[in-house]
Amino acid sequence: MPKITDERREERRLQIVHAAMRCVAAQGFHKTTMADVIRESGMSAGAVYGYFRNKEDLIIAIADKAMSLADRTIGELLETDPLPTLSAMVEHITTAITGFQQGEQGDITRVAVVVWAEAIRDESVRALVTARFQVIRGRYAELVRAQQRAGRLDPAEDPELVARALFGLMPGFVLQRLLMGDLDPETYARAVRGLQRISDTP
Amino acid sequence: MPKITDERREERRLQIVHAAMRCVAAQGFHKTTMADVIRESGMSAGAVYGYFRNKEDLIIAIADKAMSLADRTIGELLETDPLPTLSAMVEHITTAITGFQQGEQGDITRVAVVVWAEAIRDESVRALVTARFQVIRGRYAELVRAQQRAGRLDPAEDPELVARALFGLMPGFVLQRLLMGDLDPETYARAVRGLQRISDTP
Repeated sequence: MPKITDERREERRLQIVHAAMRCVAAQGFHKTTMADVIRESGMSAGAVYGYFRNKEDLIIAIADKAMSLADRTIGELLETDPLPTLSAMVEHITTAITGFQQGEQGDITRVAVVVWAEAIRDESVRALVTARFQVIRGRYAELVRAQQRAGRLDPAEDPELVARALFGLMPGFVLQRLLMGDLDPETYARAVRGLQRISDTP
Repeated sequence: MPKITDERREERRLQIVHAAMRCVAAQGFHKTTMADVIRESGMSAGAVYGYFRNKEDLIIAIADKAMSLADRTIGELLETDPLPTLSAMVEHITTAITGFQQGEQGDITRVAVVVWAEAIRDESVRALVTARFQVIRGRYAELVRAQQRAGRLDPAEDPELVARALFGLMPGFVLQRLLMGDLDPETYARAVRGLQRISDTP
């Protein structure tokens, strides 16, 4: 085999991951076969198996790709000065999510919904998803801590607790966008701002 | 056939719907067959077909059952005097959701996640789910309007807009509860209250 550069290798790897995402979004994880992914990737079976031994390897690669994007998005927010407000954070994160939708990997939010369903039925997928949810939610807690440092939230509030609500807003964005088609990041940010404005004093 | 009372008829109908929910939660909608539901229900094929002609009829019955429960829960909130705070509303709704989990129909939240995934792949399931999401979200807007009437939110805010964020909190509760297992209604309500306390002024 001719030697290929690391860059070319990564490019090919992504080509396969994107093909796998399109397959999973279209027909679910269970129905997707390595043969489907090979066909969709336009590469040879030998080439694909050189990168991924089986479907499980592929779903890990998909989950890791979603995770690294979440990680980068939150990193950008933490580095922005002055710190974006909570609703601006929601807009930035949901913009990143909808950016996925326009990427060549097909619709990553569709893949996400499929993977959630697999996760509640399949122990190994569940372990994989749960571990990544934990990490992402931990990063959301960093966003809450940053709001505390910026003087916008009482330091006595538990950032890990509040992160459950911030994280909890995202699946609802994905579902409403996919199923009702009437939600964009700016609208959702305004909706969250409205929710925040409701006084919780009886 | 001997005559049966309306009550007995409704009871049998529910017995089938609950069996269908257990099947769908365990193996997804696509894999579930009428034969599975018949076996799970413990009834005869003739009896089951007397209530539901096919799988589509069953998924409509499942969706309608979830909807009527959502409807009842929101009705209870609107009738409570004094009006519960937003976080108390979140606690009441998520309590109703987790109440489903303990019901004999198996875990309705698991069914929900499976149905979301089917909805993005199957046009007819999607139409069904989208229509019900629209109605439930409209009911959430009524909760926001009630908060406005109670003087807890500026009447200038758009209740249909804010309802997108309130509705948007629920799938994230379901997923975190199912996949991370560390969320209960009271904790989520406190998390939402924390989120509301973050000042959105830069």
